[in-house]
Order: sequence, then structure tokens, then C-alpha cells
Amino acid sequence: MTGVRNVLFVMCDQLRRDFVSCYGNSPVPTPNLDRLARMGVRFDNAFVQSGVCGPARMSCYTGRYVSSHGATWNRVPLSAAEHTLGDYLRAAGRAAALAGKTHVLPDTEALARFGIEIESERGALLREGGFTVVDRYDGHTPPGPESGYADWLRERGYASADPWSDYVIGVDDGGRAASGWQMRNVHLPARVAEEHSETAYMTDLALDWIRAQGDTPWVLHLSYVKPHWPYVVPAPFHAMYRGADIGPILRGPQDGTVDEHPVVRAYRDHDECLSFAREAVVRHVRPAYMALIAQVDHHLGRVLDALAEAGRMRDTLIVFTSDHGEFSGDRRLGEKELLYDEIVRVPFLIYDPDPRADVARGSVDARFVEGIDVVPTILDALAIAGASHRIEGRSLLPMLRGEAPVDWRDATFAELDYGFRRARRVLGRGVQDCRACMTRTAEWKYVHWQGFRPQLFDLVADPRELDDLGADPRHEATRAAMRERLFDWLAARKRRTTIADGEVERRTDAHRAHGIHIGIW
Amino acid sequence: MTGVRNVLFVMCDQLRRDFVSCYGNSPVPTPNLDRLARMGVRFDNAFVQSGVCGPARMSCYTGRYVSSHGATWNRVPLSAAEHTLGDYLRAAGRAAALAGKTHVLPDTEALARFGIEIESERGALLREGGFTVVDRYDGHTPPGPESGYADWLRERGYASADPWSDYVIGVDDGGRAASGWQMRNVHLPARVAEEHSETAYMTDLALDWIRAQGDTPWVLHLSYVKPHWPYVVPAPFHAMYRGADIGPILRGPQDGTVDEHPVVRAYRDHDECLSFAREAVVRHVRPAYMALIAQVDHHLGRVLDALAEAGRMRDTLIVFTSDHGEFSGDRRLGEKELLYDEIVRVPFLIYDPDPRADVARGSVDARFVEGIDVVPTILDALAIAGASHRIEGRSLLPMLRGEAPVDWRDATFAELDYGFRRARRVLGRGVQDCRACMTRTAEWKYVHWQGFRPQLFDLVADPRELDDLGADPRHEATRAAMRERLFDWLAARKRRTTIADGEVERRTDAHRAHGIHIGIW
Repeated sequence: MTGVRNVLFVMCDQLRRDFVSCYGNSPVPTPNLDRLARMGVRFDNAFVQSGVCGPARMSCYTGRYVSSHGATWNRVPLSAAEHTLGDYLRAAGRAAALAGKTHVLPDTEALARFGIEIESERGALLREGGFTVVDRYDGHTPPGPESGYADWLRERGYASADPWSDYVIGVDDGGRAASGWQMRNVHLPARVAEEHSETAYMTDLALDWIRAQGDTPWVLHLSYVKPHWPYVVPAPFHAMYRGADIGPILRGPQDGTVDEHPVVRAYRDHDECLSFAREAVVRHVRPAYMALIAQVDHHLGRVLDALAEAGRMRDTLIVFTSDHGEFSGDRRLGEKELLYDEIVRVPFLIYDPDPRADVARGSVDARFVEGIDVVPTILDALAIAGASHRIEGRSLLPMLRGEAPVDWRDATFAELDYGFRRARRVLGRGVQDCRACMTRTAEWKYVHWQGFRPQLFDLVADPRELDDLGADPRHEATRAAMRERLFDWLAARKRRTTIADGEVERRTDAHRAHGIHIGIW
Repeated sequence: MTGVRNVLFVMCDQLRRDFVSCYGNSPVPTPNLDRLARMGVRFDNAFVQSGVCGPARMSCYTGRYVSSHGATWNRVPLSAAEHTLGDYLRAAGRAAALAGKTHVLPDTEALARFGIEIESERGALLREGGFTVVDRYDGHTPPGPESGYADWLRERGYASADPWSDYVIGVDDGGRAASGWQMRNVHLPARVAEEHSETAYMTDLALDWIRAQGDTPWVLHLSYVKPHWPYVVPAPFHAMYRGADIGPILRGPQDGTVDEHPVVRAYRDHDECLSFAREAVVRHVRPAYMALIAQVDHHLGRVLDALAEAGRMRDTLIVFTSDHGEFSGDRRLGEKELLYDEIVRVPFLIYDPDPRADVARGSVDARFVEGIDVVPTILDALAIAGASHRIEGRSLLPMLRGEAPVDWRDATFAELDYGFRRARRVLGRGVQDCRACMTRTAEWKYVHWQGFRPQLFDLVADPRELDDLGADPRHEATRAAMRERLFDWLAARKRRTTIADGEVERRTDAHRAHGIHIGIW
């Protein structure tokens, strides 16, 4: 028997596309991701729908754009009305297991309104975005009770009420403990052993879980919290790179330029941008970021090896991507959010075990694919019906099997809501007035900002997006054309989510059959 | 004690603005609506958010535009995630009672998913759009068990399993029973006595209910199913008007014009348009429509009298509007839906008992108001907090009290989804591809149609919207400016509905307080 029986959907957090070596010019080799690319298809123009963890992930889990699912920033609850990968699978008698991060926050107001106890089975599913939790761990705070990581560490001798703060992001400064929150410390080794690090723990857990499934078909979301900050690296990876190894830093656009976009300028007031504006910080921190990538790649190799040994490469679809990228000091910016390619263009690899996919192995597909395509692709591979009235993404299965999909998109879309950010206060705006939406074709990127001029980049002449043409009078026609694309996209979002398309088809012009006789003489 | 303690929100179904005499040039006098206008404020530029019952009503009940609440056409379930007037009132220890029509269809898929029995208290509220049902009767089908109307009729001697079909919309053709579904019969008297008609029944019920409240504060939605079809009128109203009384019929635009908008042309294939394209039909049916208006006005007079007698005019806010208008043969169209002013511009009157409103009694307010303003106005009058992260309308209370609201809108917006209509098949479109959105200023109306050219009307030179400039090269700049308004409107819809604005404000730039230290050196 061949074909897809299992699905492994791997996500990294904050892994930048050009730090993956199969994408070219990476300062860090990623041999195992490269191996996956050779086994499957490497999507060269893959984009997430937000440059922020939460909304980008909700798009990957719902198959819907950010303003469709409404969780526009981190810790905005995912509406109980949204359906996720797990919900679609469950309706077909399957389930989506989770090992790692989702960033789903429960819609507690709806749970209370609907009388659903959060500890009930229904409540747990809504709390977890439809996933069945093997271990939920969102990273960058001490693991809560939904993760076994803290106990697991204590069992291994890390005696602490909070082994995460004390060991995992704690560093060893020549025998003195210090915190990895302070980026000045990220050249020092973590106080946790590599085999006890977050990435190792979640990999072990996932492999144990997969083994335990035996021949029962499964779907697992293995969701690493790395290479996201805190940039603390266990030995020996911590010493892998130095400041000289990081490759070029993109300093532009021109420092202090007066026509920099107001929102970009406001972001420069954030701590991470104040820090990363300094080249010394970039040369100190980026090596740690690279080492975390090398470490994730190493553990992904363990996953690939284990699947191969177990014979699971015959029947397991593997989807690999990241929720967004990271500036790492490029543009003198830190972190993410803003809609440059460093952030919204992500690595995206799919291995399809089906023999029909043999024709495409090792190929590169340059079509625009999006995070919202993950759900329909997985459902399609498992021959499970989706919901065309809700899901806005499309299945990538044809591309995996050498077929040319019909009327494929020629642009991608992403959004930002910076209502929660200091930039909002810097700009004196209300919490409802901080939205941006972007469209990007092969040639142009256009970003609409509420209340401000747009950004426009000529990606052919200026692929690094250094020269913002958003106010350039010579490009008015291009801005109008890109804005037109955004208009059509906005007007076409799927809002009629409570009735299936087939039902609309059946009800069309059907009032007479229900005894309603409109306008007959 | 003065001020607002009670709210009576009256809605008619399919009542056209220029068939209400305080709006001028009505072919039918409406003395009681005119009385209400003298007591309160008459809004001259009031618009609904859809030309279809269901979506227009859901906007009035949620305070949200159609593509925000998602119930884009009749019988599209209102998402369980939406909050309605009744929900906001309930959170403040009040309730919204219902006597009449809502067109709410329950989100049964969500109910099943959340394990809510539809017969439970929670289920009933979700089924009824948050209203507490006194009597729910949506009209144009035999009343179901949620209405007492059929039993009430039988108690009054209308012996029938279906007294509605047999008597209420049955007509007496010289001793022979015939159906009022056939518009050729609407000159004949209904077989139901006037005092037993739908309008009389619902008025009696509402007045009884109001009396029963005594001095307990209340909110009631009295929602008439008339003058909506079937256009069957009880005696003596049935004989009130004849074909000569109906005033001018708007025949244009030019019959058979080749550049009529494709969607408008497709609508002409609907039964009601085929019928109403004939002047003889208009002259036969419009008198019945007018008589139904006269009848509703008569019963509204009873309501106003009863409130005055009970002393309730001292403490009751009265909001009167309609869910949309009706073509009644104008433009050779029947029914509604298309976004002309006959459909989306509605009568809208508010009486505010507060002494602060004395300054504005009898005045006319020309600002754009919308159906979505009903919920925030009622909540504001009762000093109940709304939800700025969901509600898109604004309170009209300032206008009622002679205050000038700040930054008031200078345009209105409405939408159409014709996916359920024969026109979709005529045009060969898919069920997701049939959307329109309109914006209208004092000077221009612009309608965006998915996949077709827009419509544009110069409302100053052409207030009847006869000359569609949507393809006229001389008006490209105006179209671009109107499209820009629509773009900004689309991009600003409230999608982040699971977190209150105040909470976003509190969380802004607050990560450090939660022990998350991003990007510090």
C-alpha cells in the first residue's frame, strides 16, 4: 500500500527563508532541510499571511486569511466559530495531534456564553484550536501544566521551581548564572544540556508518539519554538558561529532618511529595533540565531531518519514551514511584523510519499503558495472534504504530483495589526486604526497602511526592498493597479461561513419548491 | 422621573421611504408615522445595509455591516459568534422581547458543535438572535409553532389546518376562495377580518405585552411582516386605492438599453420583474401595497395612543424603520435587493422622551444614518455599554438631543450577495462570486460588482438614478474616488471581535510586565 496515510506538519518559529541552505546563500547549512527538499518539492515563493506568530499560525490552522479568522495579533483569542485542521479531521474520524507551539488562545467569552467548561472535551478542543494535545508548549515563557517539559527537566536533575528560566534560557557565565533574556549573554552556553533543550525534548516526544501509533494512521503537528528568541543555545551549538560568519547585514535604506514610512519609523522605537540597529548587537546575536537553526536542522534529521527506519516514508506526507522570518538586524530592525520579504517569505517544503509525486521530487516550484494552503493540502492528501465556504487556501497536491493547477494565484496577501504595539502610541492612533494589508506579485510589493501613505517596492529593480516608491509620483499607475488587486481581494473574503457552498447551490432559485411564490401574476 | 426606561423598536418589512407621507410626495398618507416624526426626529438620509430582509435585519440586530456578521442573504444562519441587541441587553440584566419577524436562522452547525440543545435556554436565544420571544412570526409562510397566530385565528372561527393560506392570504372572489399568492387577486378582500389580520394580531399582542409589564422597564421589538407580499389586504383597506391613485411609475432607464448593467439585466429574468415590467400589473398591485401601508400606519396609531394613555410616552424611546424598500414596478423591477435608493433608503424616525430631546422634536436630520446605528442608539439611551470591537454603527442619541456628533460619516454602505438567485445562473457565476458593495455620498452612488463593471450615479444631476455612468469614460476620476472610499471601508471592517478594545489598550506594549523581554541588550 502506498499513498498518504499519515501527515507530519512541522513548523519552526521565526525561521528565515534565506537562513535555510536549500534556498541559497544561507550563512548556516541546513543539510536535513536540504534533504527534505530533495525528497519533495521546494516552494520558492511561499508566504505567510502575517509577520506575527499568532495570526500567521491561525491562518495555517484555519486555511483563512488573518482578517477572515480575526485573530489579528498574538493572544487574540481564536473565535470559537472558526474551524481548524483538527476540526476538519475530526469530522472525518481522524484527529490532529500537537507536539509544541500553536499560540492559540481560547475564546473564553464564547465558551462562557455557550456554557462550555474549558476542562471538558469540547472546551479542551476549543482551547487548543482543535488539536489533540500530546504536549503544548508555546515557548518564551516557563512551560505551563499543558507541557510536561518542566517535570521532564526536573526528573533529569534540573532542580528548580522554574527550570526553564534557570536552565533553558539561563546561561553559564564562567560558573555564574545569567539570563538569556539579555542578548549580551547569548554567546554563552545554555545551562541545559543539548539533549534536554526545548528542541530535543519536543523531537523525542514526537518520535515516541509516532512510534506509539504503530500502524494506526496519524496526523501530527510538530511545532518547534525555535529559532525564536530567547536566543539561548546549548553547547556545543552555542559556539558554532561567530560574528564574522553571519554574512552581510542589510543596513539600508539610507540611515535617517526623511521619507521613511511613518510606521516603519515608529517601529524603530521598539526595544528590539533600538538594540538591533547596532551592528555589534547583530554580530553578537545572529550567530546564536544561526546556531539555533543548525540545532533544529539536526533534530529534523533525527525525525527523517526515524521515519525512514520505521518505513513511514512510504506513507507520510511531510509539510515543513515557518510561521514567519526575522530581521536579525537587517534594515536596522529586530524581530518581525513589518511586511518585508525577510518576514513574510518563508521556507516551505513538502514531501509526498505517493508514487505520483516521483516526477516532482527535488523540484522547485516558483508559484505563490501561502500558509493558508496547508490545511487544504493536508485534507486533499487524506481525501477529506474541506469547506469551500470557509477555507481560502488551495491544495498544493497537484504541484507535488507534477500537475499544473488551474488559475493559480499570481499574488500573495498578508496583513498586520499593530494596535498592541508601542508604535501605535508613537503614532497616536486608536486600537482600531492600526491595520495594514499587503499584496505582492513577482514584480511589485504594495502595502496599504490605514491613515498613512502606502509602501511600494519594485522587486525586479530593487529585490531587497530598499527604495520605497510609495510616494513617488512616477509610480502612481502601479500603486493604483496594486491597490485594485487589494480591493478585489478584500471584497472577496469568505464571510458567509455558516452555510456550505453546495447548500447555496441547492437553494438557488428554489423558493417556489418551498411554497413561496414571489411576484407571479 | 424622566428619561428612557423602555424601548419600542418598530420595524416594517419592505416599507418604501417615499410611501411615508412625512417624507413628501407619498401616494398614501401615513398620519401616524407623521405624528411620530413630529414628536421626534425624522432622518432623511437613512440607509439599510442590504436590500434583502435577512442581512438588513441582522445588521440592525448586531450593529454590524453585512460582510461583518456574515448572514449575507435570507436564511443564511446568523453565526453563533455574533452578538445581538438581546445579548448586549442581557449582559446588563435587561432583555429584548420580540413580537413579530426577525428572519434569524439559527447556526445549527455551531449549536451541534458546542453541544447546545436548541430547546435549551441558550439554544432558544441563539435560535432567536438573542430575542426573548413573545411571538415570532416571519411572515409569507404559514405561522409555525413559535407563533400563536394560527391558534388565535382558529379560536376566532377560522377553522382550518392552515388558516393563513386559507384566510389571511386567501381572498374572496365573489364567494369563491382564491389565493393571494397570485397578484391578479390582490384587489379582492382578504378572507380574514381586518381585526384578525397579521398587523392587527401583532399589534394586539404587543400592546397586551406592554400593559403586562406594568412599571417594569422593557425593550420590545415590534416587527411587522407588512407591507411585504403577499399583497393581500383585509376589508375595508383593500378598496382604499385604485390604479389611478398610485402616482407616477418610474419606467426608465431606457427600455432595452444595451448598456444596462449585466446584473440588473439578469434580475429582469426573475418572476417578479417579468410581472412588474407590465404597467397593468403595477397599477393592479401597487394600490394593495399602499393599502397595506395605510393599515400598518393605522395600527401604529393604536400603539402611539396606547403608550400615551399609559403614560409611557414619558419614558419610552421609539425607533421606527423598515428593513428595506420595494420597487413596485419602478424601473420595471419588482421586489428589492438591487442597491437603488427605492430599496436601501428607508424611513427612519426616533422619538426620545428625554427632555433634552425637546430641542429637536419635529426636526429633520439630513446626516447619513444606517441600520447598524439602531443597536448603539438603544444601548446609549439605556446607558448600557456596547462593544466597540464589534459594533460598527454609532449612537444617534446626540442628534436626538440637538448635539452635533463629531466626525460623522459622510457616506453610507450596503452590500448584496445574489448567490442564491436565478440571476447567478443567468450570468453563469459560482456561489462565491456574486457580491456587490455600494457606497453613496450626498452626490454620488457607486456599486462595485464582482466580475462586472461598476454602477455610478450622479445623484445631483440624476437623483432618480436613471443614467448609469459606470462605464462612462468622463467619470473615471469619480469612480476612482468612490472606489477609494469603498477600499477604506473594506479595509476597516471590525474583524478582531474576540477581544475588547479596552483590553487591547491595556495590553499595548505591555510584554515586559509579563516577564517577556524582547530584544534587550
